[in-house]
Amino acid sequence: MNPMKIAYKVWLHQDGKAFGDGPYELLRRVEKTKSLHRAASQMGMSYSKAWRLIRTVEQRLGFVLLERKVGGHFGGGSRVTPEGKELMKRYGLFQKEVKSSLQRIYRTYFGSKNK
Amino acid sequence: MNPMKIAYKVWLHQDGKAFGDGPYELLRRVEKTKSLHRAASQMGMSYSKAWRLIRTVEQRLGFVLLERKVGGHFGGGSRVTPEGKELMKRYGLFQKEVKSSLQRIYRTYFGSKNK
Repeated sequence: MNPMKIAYKVWLHQDGKAFGDGPYELLRRVEKTKSLHRAASQMGMSYSKAWRLIRTVEQRLGFVLLERKVGGHFGGGSRVTPEGKELMKRYGLFQKEVKSSLQRIYRTYFGSKNK
Repeated sequence: MNPMKIAYKVWLHQDGKAFGDGPYELLRRVEKTKSLHRAASQMGMSYSKAWRLIRTVEQRLGFVLLERKVGGHFGGGSRVTPEGKELMKRYGLFQKEVKSSLQRIYRTYFGSKNK
């Protein structure tokens, strides 16, 4: 039998699921590739799905995450807005602290010394 | 627009979803009502679904949660085993600490003073 472990999903909620690991990963890839098309492709997601996801997140958060440039390869590039970058910075730190805290709490109550 | 908040699901994983808020709530109601039938009914769950849930959890955790008594009203009563009670005690504390820690981490990165 495999050892027991903690599993979790954590997200920001605002009039629905507003932001979480998926959109964060997508934005990180947009930052690297400068393209929502390439970012979506790397995640095995269609461009239209990625575009709808970003739109939904923008509507729920109330600010724009991506500046879109028309034309060029792949229908132009995309860049993360300053507000998007600020969100990513905070979310990255939040995500890291969530992970370490949940692991610590799990060990406290279900670690091997308690078995 | 409603204020943003944190949302989450946390569970114990062992060869699949092993234990979480649903089974914990079900066991709490069995403790109170002494009956899996009544506990399931209170949660709007069929008896057969509750029974399968408990069986799955028992198999994944590797120990028995409920002692079943045959006969009587509602096919006899159910009682939580000592191992089940120990799990409930730990899970209750775990659940409480998870909640307070996640709220604290959320406020650190997304609290109103940061907006």
